[in-house]
Amino acid sequence: MLDLIMSQTVDGLDVAKKAAAVKAVDNHVKNGFTVGIGSGTTIIHAIQRIKQNKLDVQCIGICPTTLDLILENGLKLTDLSTHPELDVFIDGFDEVEISTKSLIVGACGRVAAVKIAANASKQIVFIADNSKQSQRLGQVFHEGIPIEVIPVAAKRVAQEVEKLFKGNAVLRVRTDSVEPFVFLNENKNHIIDWMFTDVWHKRSRRNAVLRVRTDSVEPFVFLNENKNHIIDWMFTDDGVKGRKWDDIYRTIKLMSGVVDVGLVLNDKSNITVYLGAKDGHVDTL
Amino acid sequence: MLDLIMSQTVDGLDVAKKAAAVKAVDNHVKNGFTVGIGSGTTIIHAIQRIKQNKLDVQCIGICPTTLDLILENGLKLTDLSTHPELDVFIDGFDEVEISTKSLIVGACGRVAAVKIAANASKQIVFIADNSKQSQRLGQVFHEGIPIEVIPVAAKRVAQEVEKLFKGNAVLRVRTDSVEPFVFLNENKNHIIDWMFTDVWHKRSRRNAVLRVRTDSVEPFVFLNENKNHIIDWMFTDDGVKGRKWDDIYRTIKLMSGVVDVGLVLNDKSNITVYLGAKDGHVDTL
Repeated sequence: MLDLIMSQTVDGLDVAKKAAAVKAVDNHVKNGFTVGIGSGTTIIHAIQRIKQNKLDVQCIGICPTTLDLILENGLKLTDLSTHPELDVFIDGFDEVEISTKSLIVGACGRVAAVKIAANASKQIVFIADNSKQSQRLGQVFHEGIPIEVIPVAAKRVAQEVEKLFKGNAVLRVRTDSVEPFVFLNENKNHIIDWMFTDVWHKRSRRNAVLRVRTDSVEPFVFLNENKNHIIDWMFTDDGVKGRKWDDIYRTIKLMSGVVDVGLVLNDKSNITVYLGAKDGHVDTL
Repeated sequence: MLDLIMSQTVDGLDVAKKAAAVKAVDNHVKNGFTVGIGSGTTIIHAIQRIKQNKLDVQCIGICPTTLDLILENGLKLTDLSTHPELDVFIDGFDEVEISTKSLIVGACGRVAAVKIAANASKQIVFIADNSKQSQRLGQVFHEGIPIEVIPVAAKRVAQEVEKLFKGNAVLRVRTDSVEPFVFLNENKNHIIDWMFTDVWHKRSRRNAVLRVRTDSVEPFVFLNENKNHIIDWMFTDDGVKGRKWDDIYRTIKLMSGVVDVGLVLNDKSNITVYLGAKDGHVDTL
């Protein structure tokens, strides 16, 4: 009852997150399953739903906070060494490109942890509120694609990524302590945040063109009922379409010193994405 | 003088190693260079030769022992963060397949460290005595190809490698202390040793065939001048040729949780391999 009452008092975004999490658990988690659970505000609802549905499952958490949540909700805990194959992995994400179902994940810095759990799982379910959807990666999430690297290789990897793919690849630094320090995740690795969106925006702007009709004797500038012109912002030009996330993913993952890249590609049929809306309905990608 | 005298007192293998190291330094290390140095018994000679040649270089070592050797020999020390691009990287190795110049490296467990330094370097020089050369990887070095993995993924990666490529992929365990413990390298990662040679040997044995001449009216079993038969051991059959190290490398490196694979491929023109002989001559691959 408590979480039902709570959900009515929180903002619409939380309703949206919860709707996606509930659908994920109801559709994908069954008694006897081994369930991998990611991190973030959305998966809190997933853990609560597993408890609410009284499901008898074994849970694997990818970080200490998730482990705490699993135990606080009275669920059983196991790990990947004991269960190297999961039935389902549920996680939040930072952005999804609708057309390709490519996702940015692991922005919190646990890139390898997310990818290892996802790769170990028969089914993968990503959940978020629908503000995380976009036409092209980079429209919604501006913090860049996180790349987990062995510390000694960080500088070189950042240089290589910028050289090959443009944008800014920046070593993540924490500034929330007395002195700034380079971020280290639980694997003792650094994170490079690759902000590729500069290029995207530049290209996009270049392709905003005045609409011209060519279906009459002479071409003329289009006028609508309000006597206004239309500028077509063709953000889907080749330059932008040209970001082939699968090629980019492989190229970066193959670099020496790169542990993993916070991109999930739609290269497996076992990925489902749920996007919750503020009115409680959920879209499926 | 001391090391000249020493080299005359040690065994032939050390003469061979030294010959390769001397050639590597004399041909590839110049004043003003930034030089990456690997680990092992062969590179001791390389460090001594740099000192002997009075070369003014900055050195980067991939492990504490190498750092000590660099400093003990009075050479200047730097690191990859200061110098993300090296002029040359010199390292030993565990086996080289002559036809493809593919190498097994990093068997000591520093897989990512070796690959990061090699990848950061304009020229890469691998040195060893010529007992490390083979027709097919696995003939000489039987400890397997080392794979550096994030600990939580170790079990799953081992399973995937065996499933895809056969052989035995085994988590490295140290047994030289009171209790056995799982090996952790300086990156806090585990090593999986993938012993792929089972398959190789089985296939090879299956293709040892008695030579038959078919260029007369009737086929007859070949006899040489000594009236002996010949068995042709066709270890280069398709099954064996089928180990495409570049494909295998990419597949394993792309697995979630894999940091790097102890294989160096002949995919760059900047790799030189020197093989020293006991009589002091050096072959170049």
